Amino acid sequence: MHYADGKTTPCKDVLPQQFAGCSDLKTTSFLRRIIAAVKPHLIVFTGDNIFGFDANDAAYSLNAAFSPAVLSNVPWAAVLGNRDQESTLSRAGVMKHIVGMKHNLSQFNPPEVDNIDGFGNYNLEVRGVEGSAFENKSVLNLYFLDSGDYSTVPSIPSYGWIKLSQLLWFQNTSKKLQRAYKNKPEAQEAPAPGLAYFHIPLPELTIFNSSNFTGVKQEGISSASVNSGFFTTMVEAGDVKVVFVGHGHINDFCGELTGIHLCYGGGFGYHAYGKVGWDKRARVVAASLEKTEKGGWGGVKSIKTRKHLYNQLLTAVDVQVLWSH
Amino acid sequence: MHYADGKTTPCKDVLPQQFAGCSDLKTTSFLRRIIAAVKPHLIVFTGDNIFGFDANDAAYSLNAAFSPAVLSNVPWAAVLGNRDQESTLSRAGVMKHIVGMKHNLSQFNPPEVDNIDGFGNYNLEVRGVEGSAFENKSVLNLYFLDSGDYSTVPSIPSYGWIKLSQLLWFQNTSKKLQRAYKNKPEAQEAPAPGLAYFHIPLPELTIFNSSNFTGVKQEGISSASVNSGFFTTMVEAGDVKVVFVGHGHINDFCGELTGIHLCYGGGFGYHAYGKVGWDKRARVVAASLEKTEKGGWGGVKSIKTRKHLYNQLLTAVDVQVLWSH
Repeated sequence: MHYADGKTTPCKDVLPQQFAGCSDLKTTSFLRRIIAAVKPHLIVFTGDNIFGFDANDAAYSLNAAFSPAVLSNVPWAAVLGNRDQESTLSRAGVMKHIVGMKHNLSQFNPPEVDNIDGFGNYNLEVRGVEGSAFENKSVLNLYFLDSGDYSTVPSIPSYGWIKLSQLLWFQNTSKKLQRAYKNKPEAQEAPAPGLAYFHIPLPELTIFNSSNFTGVKQEGISSASVNSGFFTTMVEAGDVKVVFVGHGHINDFCGELTGIHLCYGGGFGYHAYGKVGWDKRARVVAASLEKTEKGGWGGVKSIKTRKHLYNQLLTAVDVQVLWSH
Repeated sequence: MHYADGKTTPCKDVLPQQFAGCSDLKTTSFLRRIIAAVKPHLIVFTGDNIFGFDANDAAYSLNAAFSPAVLSNVPWAAVLGNRDQESTLSRAGVMKHIVGMKHNLSQFNPPEVDNIDGFGNYNLEVRGVEGSAFENKSVLNLYFLDSGDYSTVPSIPSYGWIKLSQLLWFQNTSKKLQRAYKNKPEAQEAPAPGLAYFHIPLPELTIFNSSNFTGVKQEGISSASVNSGFFTTMVEAGDVKVVFVGHGHINDFCGELTGIHLCYGGGFGYHAYGKVGWDKRARVVAASLEKTEKGGWGGVKSIKTRKHLYNQLLTAVDVQVLWSH
C-alpha cells in the first residue's frame, strides 16, 4: 500500500488529469471498494504497508492504511516489507503495532521458537467445515514470513532474505501440519495445500520469461542477491503450492516452477512508483472445497486466482487455476 | 579417484599409446607420487572415491583406493560423492568403512546432532603451534559435508544437495568455533579462516565465466538443479574463505564470489571420464602462519593453492593466493 500521511501524501505515476487531489486516500478507497466487491474471508497485506520514509508517525500511518480492513470486520493479516520500519517505529515496533490491531490474525513470531530472524513469522490454519470430518483439521495452511529489509552482510549488496532460522521454523511447522492432516479422521495421502506470503521475491523468479507465466513482467526481479534456499526447502516440504510476494510494483505475474506457483500481488498503493496508465490492482485467491462421496465437505479441491483492476468496474483479469487436488 | 577393481579396471580418455596396461593402478601411482613430492600434512578426498558401479567389492575398492594415503602415515579425510554407494556398500556403509581406516580423521557424523542428512558431515580443527598462545585454539577450520547423490524429490531432477539440517549444523559449528577464536588468550577480531570440502558443486559456480577465474572450465557445472542456500549460509557465517568440490572432471578453476573462493579439485582418477591429452591433476592447499610481534607463531596469515599435473615433473600450475589476513 505504501501508505504515508493520508490526504497530504500525493499519488505517484498517475495520468496528469488524475494527479490533482490524488493521495493515499485513493489507496483507502481502493481497499474499501475491493473488500466490498470481493467479500473476502481473509485479507493479506504483503509488506511495504506503509512507506516509512514519508510517514510522520508510523502508528498513525499503519492505522490509516489498514482502517478499511479493520472497519470491514474481515480478519486480516500482514507481513513486513523493506519500507515499514523507515518511520518512527522499528521493524519490531511495526509488527507489534499490527498484531495489536482489531481483527488482525498476524503474530509477532512463533511462540514455540526461541530465536528466529525477523518479525511476523507465523502460520494460520484454515479448518474444514464444521460438522464435517475435517472440522478439526487444517485443510489450507498459510505461512507468513518476514523476508527482511536490506542485507546486513557487508559483502552482500541489496535486499534481505529469509534466514536459516526461518527455514527451520517453516520445515518443522510444515512437518507437524502434514502429520496431523495425514492422520485420522479422514487420513489423507497428500498434505493439505499451503500458501506462503512474504514481501521480497525469491531469486528463482528470475528464471521466468514472458512465455511461461500469466500476467506481466515490466521490471526486473528485485530479489536478494543471494539465494538462501527457501524455495528448495518448500519443494522438499511438498505442501506449499503457491508463493505470493509484494515488492515489485509493475510485475503481476504468476509462473510455475517445480510444482510451486510463484506469484506477484501487483501494485496496490497510489503513493508508490508505478506505470502511468497501468491500473493499480489486487490479487484474489479462491480456495474451493471438495464434496466427499457421502455428500459432506472435504478438503481443498482447487485454488484459483485472479486480479481486480482499480477502475470503475473493478475488472477481473488473468483467471488462473494454481492448484487442484 | 573413481577407483574400481584395480589392475583389471581400464583407464578412460587417455591417449591411444597410453591405453595398453593403463588401469586404476595409475591412479594409485599418481597418489603415491604426489604424496611423496608434496609431503602434505593432511590429504582430503572430495568424493567419488570409488566408482561403485564398476567395483565388485566396495570394501576392497576403498582399501585399494586409499592405500597410498594409509601407507604414507599422513592423516587423511574423505567425503562421499554420488558414486561411492553404487557397489556393495550403502552410503552409510561406505562412510563407516572409511571412518574405520588407518590414519583417517573423517567422522561418520557430528555426535552432538540428533538428525542430520547424509553421512560424513564433520569438522576438523587445526591448532596453533605448540607453545604459542594459539596452541589451544583452532587457527584453521575444515568443514566436510555430504552433498548427497541424487535428488529424492520427484519434481526435482538430477543431483543431490546440502540439506537444511546440514546448514544448521554448519551454522552452529561455525558460531562455536568463531566464539572460541575471538576469546582470550589472543582474542582475535576476525574469525579463523575456514575451508569447506564436499563433492557436488554449488549452483553459484554457474555464474563464473572464463574472465573471472584461474584454471579452466571445459564442461558445464553439474550442480543440483535447486539452490539450497549453503553458499548464503557460509557468507553469513563469515569464516569460510574457500570451498573445494569434486564432481567435475575437466573443470579445475577457482573463482571468487562475495568473499569466498569456489574451487574445483581437478580430475584425479584414471577410470573416470576426462579429456584426452589433458593431464590428471591434484590440488594442493598451503596455509602459512603469522609471526607475532613478540616473534612467536600466530594465526593463519595466508592460504595459497596450486595444482600438480601428473606428468614426469609433476608440474605445478595456477599458483593463487586464496586468502590473506
